[in-house]
Amino acid sequence: MTVDLAFPAGRWDFVPAEEIERRTRRFQAALTQSGMQLAVILHNPDLFYLTGTIQQGPLLVPAEGEPVFLVRKDPDRARVESPVKDIRPLGSLRELPAVIAGFGLGADAVVGMELDVVPVTHFRRYEALFPGATIKDCSPVIRTVRSVKSDYERAFTAEAARIVDAGYQAAVEALKPGMTELELSAVCGAAMRRLGNSNVRMHQFNEDWPFGNVSAGPHAALAGYTGNPLAGGGMSPAIGQGSGWRPIAPGDPVVVDLVSFTGGYYCDQTRIISIGPVADDLAEGQRLCQEVQDVFRQAAKAGVQCGDVYKVSNDWMTERLAASGLDAYFMGAPNNQAPYIGHGVGLELDELPVLARGFKMVLEQDQVIACEPKLVFPGRGVVGVENTWRVTAEGLEKITISEDDLVEV
Amino acid sequence: MTVDLAFPAGRWDFVPAEEIERRTRRFQAALTQSGMQLAVILHNPDLFYLTGTIQQGPLLVPAEGEPVFLVRKDPDRARVESPVKDIRPLGSLRELPAVIAGFGLGADAVVGMELDVVPVTHFRRYEALFPGATIKDCSPVIRTVRSVKSDYERAFTAEAARIVDAGYQAAVEALKPGMTELELSAVCGAAMRRLGNSNVRMHQFNEDWPFGNVSAGPHAALAGYTGNPLAGGGMSPAIGQGSGWRPIAPGDPVVVDLVSFTGGYYCDQTRIISIGPVADDLAEGQRLCQEVQDVFRQAAKAGVQCGDVYKVSNDWMTERLAASGLDAYFMGAPNNQAPYIGHGVGLELDELPVLARGFKMVLEQDQVIACEPKLVFPGRGVVGVENTWRVTAEGLEKITISEDDLVEV
Repeated sequence: MTVDLAFPAGRWDFVPAEEIERRTRRFQAALTQSGMQLAVILHNPDLFYLTGTIQQGPLLVPAEGEPVFLVRKDPDRARVESPVKDIRPLGSLRELPAVIAGFGLGADAVVGMELDVVPVTHFRRYEALFPGATIKDCSPVIRTVRSVKSDYERAFTAEAARIVDAGYQAAVEALKPGMTELELSAVCGAAMRRLGNSNVRMHQFNEDWPFGNVSAGPHAALAGYTGNPLAGGGMSPAIGQGSGWRPIAPGDPVVVDLVSFTGGYYCDQTRIISIGPVADDLAEGQRLCQEVQDVFRQAAKAGVQCGDVYKVSNDWMTERLAASGLDAYFMGAPNNQAPYIGHGVGLELDELPVLARGFKMVLEQDQVIACEPKLVFPGRGVVGVENTWRVTAEGLEKITISEDDLVEV
Repeated sequence: MTVDLAFPAGRWDFVPAEEIERRTRRFQAALTQSGMQLAVILHNPDLFYLTGTIQQGPLLVPAEGEPVFLVRKDPDRARVESPVKDIRPLGSLRELPAVIAGFGLGADAVVGMELDVVPVTHFRRYEALFPGATIKDCSPVIRTVRSVKSDYERAFTAEAARIVDAGYQAAVEALKPGMTELELSAVCGAAMRRLGNSNVRMHQFNEDWPFGNVSAGPHAALAGYTGNPLAGGGMSPAIGQGSGWRPIAPGDPVVVDLVSFTGGYYCDQTRIISIGPVADDLAEGQRLCQEVQDVFRQAAKAGVQCGDVYKVSNDWMTERLAASGLDAYFMGAPNNQAPYIGHGVGLELDELPVLARGFKMVLEQDQVIACEPKLVFPGRGVVGVENTWRVTAEGLEKITISEDDLVEV
């Protein structure tokens, strides 16, 4: 098939070969440790991580030896974008058994697939190609590998931090009484899109993040279905979160929770702005959310369990809320036992690790986490702050660059 | 759990009870016809179709009798948004067997699940709840039911047509030499977002539609992985389609392919604009794409097979291309055998029916289809047109409202 693949000169963000090589070796070591002899990678973010492209087809990664990337569409473009050495065009899955035979798997082989994202019908087509093998979920394996970011990856996160700041500054400049949440969201979205922003990918089934969450006052405080405890009303029950039709009123805390993208990587940030001052108790809540950042910033050192960072932060906040008599819900939880306070962010918005109660994963150097202490005041609004951080041996280093303080316009 | 569910006054687009009732009866009839006694509905668009909300949890629809909607999060909000009569909070899947027992399924029951979208790990949790039953894919069943739209649904499509027109008009106004595709895309996106636009949902695994496809000249003509045969370059191989960093040049055909949303429903439209005239052969290609609309507009009557509409349109175009000596690819296919020329659009962008070779589905009154005759001139650009149409007994009725002609600015 003759296709047009004359990539014009300019910026393309192709992933360097050494980067793909390093990721592949780390993933292969993790496969070996998990007792898997081969992984079949299909999911876009994983495919991009290990090949540098999302041209479509299965990537076969043996625990030892060279991966084979079989591309249904478009193999020529895959060769331009990906440094993987063995890229072959794939006409039909019927060609796969011969390729699989080349890996010399034993009769009792254990094969990994991304079972938490691959639909049943797709899975069954592949399952039939591995008679006798045990197929296990390799998503936890690759998600753990992906959680630790290279310098190359964190440079994109840092650029994404500049993009999310541009979206936020645009909101500060544009906010006017009577503007709807959707109008303000449009301003943020345009400022970021110009700089190369894209849509948000989420790992969890049925999760969405439509253009961030720019919402205000009581509308922002509406509880909903999302994994994020702060849903907001949305403009339709078909969406059920984020911006809606309500005009923003003076004194409303306006949540500007934005996710930016560049080069494959997301950065997550929340700030609060308002027209005139917010009520004193909301301002006090905002102060606590900013202060608790010092607690987890110091606690979240490489080598520490996620659940421990969660506990010290949640305890600190629960005590302060009780002492201040604040009638607010930490992370939307009525008993102020937050479901979580932070989540990994990278090629997807909901990555590992998660700073949640009892979560035993141990923090590692160069993981990237968005921490989002937020308080819901039912019927009134949401305050809080969210920054994206790098994990180091000394604690967290901030990646996001906007000032934390609530801005009154 | 006490949550804030004081929905402020304003526009909410809650789905009326009669609408949900009618959809449920149609789905139940289709289940009966497919030999399924029960369906377990999990996927957001299907959940919204049958309940009016996407608050999360399984909806159990028996072929006869009343559906039961079990909501993990948030049951109170589900009760506000959904007219389903039997909504129950769900703490754990362990509560399900008692509910399932209430349906009195036989030992040889056939149960439907959306196997083409539900991930394997989710499926297995449900599979364990139906020992002895056969679980079949009910996605084709509900997608067929969903393909025929009610007056209520088509009113949203018509509103979405006004939103997509606003996005397009904004592009016409904003286009200037040297502007990047991303900058132009930002303008369209903001114009639509203000009016309530949201992100695009796609049914197919790994498919994305990030902010539409606003791309120009050779960059637009790049082949790629997408189901849509016209990928464009994108701004990163992590996205691999749509807008990129290249400044738009005089004479570039600029593709403005936008998808708008309101009330759950999408509308799909493509127009071409340019700075100064495009080359004569591209203009001739544009004329053919507009003319072929008359061919399928008349052919696509209720009762006609999709494959027949495809054939007459594709034959017409292939002949004209040969006669005009145009060195272009119909729908990106080098042999001018287009992979398809139209697709259903509704709660997802890639719905049934599909106007594709040999597709035997018979068109029905009130299906909604986006038809997109497009020509790729390798290394030069893309021309064409896309409108969203309603199927009637007399052929297609246009829903989109922007003028078809290429606009020179």
